[in-house]
Amino acid sequence: MSAHLVNGQSDNRLSISDRGLNYGDGLFETIQIRDAVPLLWQAHISRMRTSAKRLKIDFPESLEVSFFNDFEKLCNGSTAPLVLKLMLTRGETQRGYKIDPKASITRITILSLAPNLVKLTRDGISVVLCQTQLARQPLLAGIKHLNRLEQVMARSEWQATSITEGIVCDTQGYVIEGCMSNLFWVKNNILHTPDLSLSGVEGVMRNQVIELCKEHQLIDTRSGFYSKQDLLNADEIFITNSVFDILAVVNVEADYSTQDIMFTPRIFKFGPITRALQALLQQYYLRKSPV
Amino acid sequence: MSAHLVNGQSDNRLSISDRGLNYGDGLFETIQIRDAVPLLWQAHISRMRTSAKRLKIDFPESLEVSFFNDFEKLCNGSTAPLVLKLMLTRGETQRGYKIDPKASITRITILSLAPNLVKLTRDGISVVLCQTQLARQPLLAGIKHLNRLEQVMARSEWQATSITEGIVCDTQGYVIEGCMSNLFWVKNNILHTPDLSLSGVEGVMRNQVIELCKEHQLIDTRSGFYSKQDLLNADEIFITNSVFDILAVVNVEADYSTQDIMFTPRIFKFGPITRALQALLQQYYLRKSPV
Repeated sequence: MSAHLVNGQSDNRLSISDRGLNYGDGLFETIQIRDAVPLLWQAHISRMRTSAKRLKIDFPESLEVSFFNDFEKLCNGSTAPLVLKLMLTRGETQRGYKIDPKASITRITILSLAPNLVKLTRDGISVVLCQTQLARQPLLAGIKHLNRLEQVMARSEWQATSITEGIVCDTQGYVIEGCMSNLFWVKNNILHTPDLSLSGVEGVMRNQVIELCKEHQLIDTRSGFYSKQDLLNADEIFITNSVFDILAVVNVEADYSTQDIMFTPRIFKFGPITRALQALLQQYYLRKSPV
Repeated sequence: MSAHLVNGQSDNRLSISDRGLNYGDGLFETIQIRDAVPLLWQAHISRMRTSAKRLKIDFPESLEVSFFNDFEKLCNGSTAPLVLKLMLTRGETQRGYKIDPKASITRITILSLAPNLVKLTRDGISVVLCQTQLARQPLLAGIKHLNRLEQVMARSEWQATSITEGIVCDTQGYVIEGCMSNLFWVKNNILHTPDLSLSGVEGVMRNQVIELCKEHQLIDTRSGFYSKQDLLNADEIFITNSVFDILAVVNVEADYSTQDIMFTPRIFKFGPITRALQALLQQYYLRKSPV
């Protein structure tokens, strides 16, 4: 169940000439809606604007307002927990990769019911280590663009509903992120998160967590290139994204990247830093919310 | 000007829930139509089938016939030079990367007028060396999938209509291909073409050229990892794709990958191997054509 607008019009279809379809030539944002408020709206719009600039996609001044108007129209004051997906493509194209400077961007806005995350937030989640590796591509690293075949392939590695997320490494074997989330772990009272300058998506929630740690002097944060073993040696692990906020990883159940059938599932505690950040984030939402 | 079918129905739009749009989760083929015959049809279908298998996209037995029926319906016996684009996506999706095994693939068929290539085929083309580099990703290498942001970015590097193609290297600096073509060059009576096991699209025309060389014992072919300097030292250079067949590169006009403003444009002769392959290809078409 969802409601949609394409370029502000009630529609759920777009042209097969759109470059979003033909080349994945566009961007998206996924935003949590609580009590009719899009959380971290400015951070999402700002990331989309920065990413559009990197990909030379037009991001007119009016676009933020247009997306917000779309949201208000679709939400219509509902206080249900919702998820807002914004897509921006370079618009329609002739055959061929060449960018038509006269083409107009396509704006797509989709509002859906949020998944129920109470249990996962309370109990933590199980993850696997994926075999799929992410290419190292500084040109596209960090950007939430529409070229997501790597994530699709990684997500296809497990079927069990007991597994919430898969952790992916880059082609050099460094741990990067989850299929749909960013990754953090605590070791020796330092919060570690992978460097995303070569692969991965720079999540809005990832930056929010780093900000909260700094603002509240909770723990020092370090980003770098880390091995799977670094992750498995952690004191506590959590993942972040804009829809589910912060989830504790309490179980690394399998490693599909090795033929090691002797891999022993690793149990992690739902740790104090994870709990503190979950609480600080909810406080932040209350503080920032206009409600 | 083009004619289109979506899942066999006359339509030029598709659902915004399609995974082709959301993730670039699909494949395409671009096929030259001459006298109402799709050239190298079997090779195109075979590549799409192999690629679908690698990406775990359903490719039912009936799909080849469905695409061919689409083509015949759109072509309607016209003998104009045309270009057929086939797209296959994993179909519609709920939010999230997870593959729904019950989802049906989407089949898109687009027929357009072919560009006029007489002058380029006769005189050869000018190219530039692009700054954009291709990631090394064995998982996706060779596949003509819908994640084409790298090509879009490379193609955006030049505007001059006198430049037909841009040559791209991988992130290690090895020459890989053109934005929309494969690359060959002759040096010391060996035909060289880049290894595509880590990056690039394995073009149907590339394989056809390698086959023709072997069948006619024209020249030995070697694939490997080569530098830009290897390319610039060539005796003759040509590019291939399914729409324009084989085009001689007679000028490498600029190197955007270096800040070297002293780069001297390099002139190449429209060489005998290029001419021989152009002729052999046209003979092959006549031999194979049912007309």
